[in-house]
Amino acid sequence: MRPVVRAGETYALDREMGEAAALEYWLGADRETFVAEVDGTVVGTYFLRANQAGGGGHVCNCGYMSAAAGAARAMFAHSEELARARGYRAMQFNFVVSVNERAVRLWEAVGFDVVGRLPGAFLHPEKGYVDALVMFKTL
Amino acid sequence: MRPVVRAGETYALDREMGEAAALEYWLGADRETFVAEVDGTVVGTYFLRANQAGGGGHVCNCGYMSAAAGAARAMFAHSEELARARGYRAMQFNFVVSVNERAVRLWEAVGFDVVGRLPGAFLHPEKGYVDALVMFKTL
Repeated sequence: MRPVVRAGETYALDREMGEAAALEYWLGADRETFVAEVDGTVVGTYFLRANQAGGGGHVCNCGYMSAAAGAARAMFAHSEELARARGYRAMQFNFVVSVNERAVRLWEAVGFDVVGRLPGAFLHPEKGYVDALVMFKTL
Repeated sequence: MRPVVRAGETYALDREMGEAAALEYWLGADRETFVAEVDGTVVGTYFLRANQAGGGGHVCNCGYMSAAAGAARAMFAHSEELARARGYRAMQFNFVVSVNERAVRLWEAVGFDVVGRLPGAFLHPEKGYVDALVMFKTL
């Protein structure tokens, strides 16, 4: 998680976040968290949780961090299967940084639609204020 | 808060939520919370917080609950002034139930745009699956 958080380019998290706070966030009691391994080495991690409570509880939310090509797509496949098994009807990403083109391309390739655009909602460390996208996939 | 939560028509919160959990949510350490009073009687309450951390920290989020006509608009005016004073550049509502017409009309009247539509993201107790809206206002 460290390089992703420190870079501050793809997640709306405090770049100076410490290890304890990062683990508390990523392993929160409201979510299930997994790692992806290749030959015993962790190459990615993701969580799945309900995106809202009550009347919004049938839509899940995931976050992925990866350190190897292909890890995000493999984790998504795992998460989609898990989401269906848990009874979720849809998956929503609340805050995809619009200039994170690799992520946007991947999510569109696996069936997500951009259902919202948050103007200037992310301060990118190099590009300044850029839009964030809300992406949604019915399962 | 009780009638709003129990009705389950406008907030994505567990309708059976107890008092302690409701207060923990509404008075969370990540937010400032206020009440609106008329002649010493509480007629509404709202909170203001950052909607995201890190590079998303310049956009705030508020939640309002009201028990009297005009309270929501008065609380919004207070929250908008506070948000500017705190240095926020925009305000975002993540989950406005689309069939909550009074709310949608009010937020549009005070300058919010619908920037996202989450298909079927809210299970209304009487109307079934309805869309939720993401609304955004630059301050």
